[in-house]
Order: sequence, then structure tokens, then C-alpha cells
Amino acid sequence: MRIVLDAMGGDAGVRVNVQGALDALREYPDMRLTLVGREEDMRGHLQAITAGGGNEPALDRLTLLHAPDVIGMHEAPVMAVRRKPHSSIVEGLMLVKNGEADAFVSAGSTGAVLAGGMFRVGRIEGVERPALAALFPMRTRKSLILDIGANTDCKPEWLAQFALMGSIYMRRTQGIENPQVALVNIGMEEEKGNETVKRAYQLLKEQPGINFIGNAEARDLPEGVADVLVCDGFVGNVILKFMEGTVHTIFKIVKDGLKSTNRGKVGGLIAKPTFKRIAAGLDASEVGGTPFLGVDGVVIKAHGNSNARAIFSAIRQARLMVENRVVSIIKDGIIQ
Amino acid sequence: MRIVLDAMGGDAGVRVNVQGALDALREYPDMRLTLVGREEDMRGHLQAITAGGGNEPALDRLTLLHAPDVIGMHEAPVMAVRRKPHSSIVEGLMLVKNGEADAFVSAGSTGAVLAGGMFRVGRIEGVERPALAALFPMRTRKSLILDIGANTDCKPEWLAQFALMGSIYMRRTQGIENPQVALVNIGMEEEKGNETVKRAYQLLKEQPGINFIGNAEARDLPEGVADVLVCDGFVGNVILKFMEGTVHTIFKIVKDGLKSTNRGKVGGLIAKPTFKRIAAGLDASEVGGTPFLGVDGVVIKAHGNSNARAIFSAIRQARLMVENRVVSIIKDGIIQ
Repeated sequence: MRIVLDAMGGDAGVRVNVQGALDALREYPDMRLTLVGREEDMRGHLQAITAGGGNEPALDRLTLLHAPDVIGMHEAPVMAVRRKPHSSIVEGLMLVKNGEADAFVSAGSTGAVLAGGMFRVGRIEGVERPALAALFPMRTRKSLILDIGANTDCKPEWLAQFALMGSIYMRRTQGIENPQVALVNIGMEEEKGNETVKRAYQLLKEQPGINFIGNAEARDLPEGVADVLVCDGFVGNVILKFMEGTVHTIFKIVKDGLKSTNRGKVGGLIAKPTFKRIAAGLDASEVGGTPFLGVDGVVIKAHGNSNARAIFSAIRQARLMVENRVVSIIKDGIIQ
Repeated sequence: MRIVLDAMGGDAGVRVNVQGALDALREYPDMRLTLVGREEDMRGHLQAITAGGGNEPALDRLTLLHAPDVIGMHEAPVMAVRRKPHSSIVEGLMLVKNGEADAFVSAGSTGAVLAGGMFRVGRIEGVERPALAALFPMRTRKSLILDIGANTDCKPEWLAQFALMGSIYMRRTQGIENPQVALVNIGMEEEKGNETVKRAYQLLKEQPGINFIGNAEARDLPEGVADVLVCDGFVGNVILKFMEGTVHTIFKIVKDGLKSTNRGKVGGLIAKPTFKRIAAGLDASEVGGTPFLGVDGVVIKAHGNSNARAIFSAIRQARLMVENRVVSIIKDGIIQ
């Protein structure tokens, strides 16, 4: 198992990537890991983190690959990927492309990871559009939402492929035998929705290899109505970010509300461990990154605000995809 | 002030409509109200509710208009409006159309209210598509989201008109002098989004009569980033329903979490009044109904699961629109 991690990705900088990499190397003795980025930065953080323990065995399985360039969060993605072949993202993806690594993980620019995935690693033959997929902890189960932003305007046929790729992902990495697939829509009836969604409904009914259960209304998503939720990248991105925002705001409202009366203060203080536990359950850093499904290799985008724990989770997720041969199963599924 | 209320609308039936109507008549001595629906049903509930008090003065301002037909929640809307001219929805809307009432309120089929609004009351000249608008209690202010479901596929020009109509609504009924308008998008930068949204951004920059502040990401909506949030009806409907679902599910998670430990139980019990207060703040029944902006009359759709309090709120909202001449101000704004 050989994983490449973009050392330069994410808001928190090199340190959390180095820490996450070390944590993963210690956890998984079968794994080799390549950190790609500015060598000096990587060495500096490595020394600081392993101060005095630089001879631990896990480090024997760590390689540093120098990539002098960095793609910034606000660079135009396609252009940046083309102009910066020696950036950490492109160098890392090329290791996957050339068979020198099994998976690439980055908390860097989403656009650049997607563009690099598309144009450096390339699509699986037959896949019209790869999709970014997020596994979300709904109340009664985890739901995979895709696409969450790779394709803002979608053809109905793409949505049908998303359903198939998402089903394979859930079956292989989450052990769900016959994942339920639903189409995110504004009503339960077959004829509801915009033009794209209406046509997608008809295709999903016919799509082999999936267990289509019909439409899912946004109201029911947080309860956990399906294993795979299909939508275009605009709607998926809105759902994903709106959920983050709503959870954040409701906790703030509850906190402020409890603080505003003495009785609330006392109750809140007593119940504090419970609130902490609930917040942890809704914490995205446990979910890992978002796989870019449909490219010909394992590519995982970790959240921009990842801490070391989130980087570790994204690596764990990459491992699951490699171990369970998700890419080659998608290949077989698409060709059928 | 003459309001028409659809007595047959909503999941809870005639009783909550009659109760909401009576509450409003008692609150507003300047108001006349017509209940439209099956006369027998209306009389029955009226007698039950006013038992012994049937001679109170508020009842002098109440009229019952018999409409033998009812449009069900699952009837095809356009067809139902055409085939059932003597339904409560169509009869009620015709009073507005003919100038015999100032506003129509219904908790019935959304599709039928929209179709009836479009084809019986009619569009304001120059309005391309009327939009359904919901006022939502975000943390720091109320935001009006439109469209929330009248138009699932939108042209960019329609979105620009939604912005204008929403701004007028917020200025006139909420007293916000220079309402901030934002475009719901998946990124803050001008070039983000799907094709419709990208073009709408350019139109909104040029649209006179609005205070456009740029894109708003879904993550930031619950905090309250703008007074008017513009999006197509598919996205707006997803946001609206997803917010309902998320609030519901988080409260369930918190409740279950508190119950699962003794410490949580004690803290939760002590903080219970605070939770009740918070839940009330997020309660849609205080918000009132959703105005159908762009039709040539005041048409308010109340939530299908309205209680008497929600019906009262929707009537209050209709009054605000009439008193502040929202329809004629939109007329002036569109013609300019």
C-alpha cells in the first residue's frame, strides 16, 4: 500500500499534513507514504514533530518528494495544473498515474485536485464525468452525496452514472450489500423536479447495478433516507455547505440560549459532556475526505480546514478504496 | 381591509382555518374576512368554536362563501384549477381578481395556489415569472429566500426580477431601508456557479433598484448574510426543506443524547425551558406564509401543516402586504 499525501494542502499548512502522515504510518505497518511538497518545509516540521524520536521504525516507510511549486487556493485550477507541473498536487497525482503510488490525498485547492485528477490521472473509460462524493453522518446511517461540486451543470446521463459509482463505493468501502439510491428532488412524485432531474429519474429506473428507491426530499435527508443521494454538483454543494452552516449556527443558538438564563447555565454545564459528544458525532474530521469517483486512480480531497485527525481519516479512506479495489470495480461496472 | 381565507386548506382541516380567522378578526377590528369553502363544514366548526359566544361583534365582520369543490393535495394543479372553478381556491382567488377582496390566504395545495395565482389572478405586466418567497429566521436577521419552488428551471433574467421583487417586499413589509441582496452560489467569486447563476450575477450587478452584495455560500446562510437570497425554485426548495429537516433532526439528536446518560438527563431537564424557547424561535408557524410575488394581487400560501397560530400569522402577513401596497410598488418597479 503506497499513499501520496500533498504536504502543502489545507489552511493549517504543512504541520498537520506531516502529523497526519506520521499518525497513519504508526497505525498501518503495511503502508508506505510519500509526502510531496517543499522539502525544507517538510523536513522542518518532521524534525519538530519527531524531536528526539527521529529513529522510530515508522519513518523508514516515509519518503519525501520535493515539489518546489504550490498551487494556491485562489488560482484558476485548470491553468494552474497546466502551468505548474512541479507543484505538489501535480507531482503527487503523477505518482498515481505512473503506478508508483496507489492513492493521492490532498487538502489543497479543490479545483486543482479535480483538474489534476481529470487531466493528469484521467477518466475511467466510459465515465462521462467524474464526481466528488461526500460521506455524511445522517442520524440513522451514513449517506454518500454526489456530486458535491465537480459538475455544476449536469446531464441526466451523468447523474445515472453517479448513482452507479456511488453504489459501488458504498458496497465496497462501507460493506452495504445493496445500497439504496435516491434522487434528491423537491417532491416524492416521479414527475417532480427540474428538467434534468425528471429525465434522470427515468434513467435511474432503468440503470442496472443499482437499487433505486425513488426521490428523496431535502426535508428527509438529515434522518438518513438512502445510502446514496444523487444530485448535480450545484445542489450537492449547497446541501453540504448548508448542513455545515446549520449545525454550526444551531449549536451557537443553543449555547447563547443556555447562557442567557441562570437555569440554562446550570443545565448546560451539567449536560456539557453530552453536547461535546454530540458535536463530535457531527464532526467532519471523522468522516475523512471526499473521493473523486470516476478517475482512473484513487484521489481523495480532504477538507481545506483539516486538522491532523482529518488528514489521518482521509488516508484511512484512501486505504479502504485501494484495499477494496473500488476503481477497478467501477471500471467493470461502467463497461457492462 | 378585506381578506379571503381558504377554509379547506391544510393538513389539519377546516377547524384551524376557522380558528385562525376568528383570532385574526378579534385582533384586527378594521378587518373583514371571508371564509371560502364548504358552507356546512365551516358552519359546524364555527359553532363548535364559538359555542355560547356566537353573538360576539367580531363575527359581524365574517362572511362565509360557499364553494362546493375542494382541490386535493395530489391533484395535477393546472388541470384542477381549470376543472374546478367552484373550488375554494379558485373562488377565493376570483374575489381578489374582481377587486372584492384585498388578499387571498390558503394552506392548500401549493401547486393549485400557484396555478390559480398565475391563471386566475394573473401576472403583473412585465413580470416574467412570479416567485414564491419564504421569510426565514436566520440567527442575526430574517432572510427572504426566493424562489422556493414556483419555478424549477429559471432563466437568469427571472432571477434578477426576483431580486427586485424581494427587495421591495423586505423594504415595505419589514422596514429594511436598503435590503442586501445576495445570489445563492457555491463560491464567493464572481465566476463561480452553474451557467444560469453566472449569467444572473452579471444581471444583478446592473439591476437598478437593488443593493446587490454578491454571492452567498450556503454555509453562511443560517447566520444571516443578506436580507434577500435569490436562487432558482429547485435550489430554494431544497434549502427550505433541508433547513426544516436539519433543525428537526438536530433537536432529536440532542434530545436522545441528553437522555442517554444520567448527567445529560439532569442537565436537559434543568435547561428544558431554554430549549423550548429556542425551538419556538425556529418555529415556522411564527413566520407566516409564503407570498407569491409578481402576481397582480396579494396571494399568500400558508404551510400545509399550519396550526391556527400559523394561519393567523399568514393573515397578518397578508395585511402587511396590503397596507404597504407591495403589489403596486412592484408594478412601479418593474415598469421603470
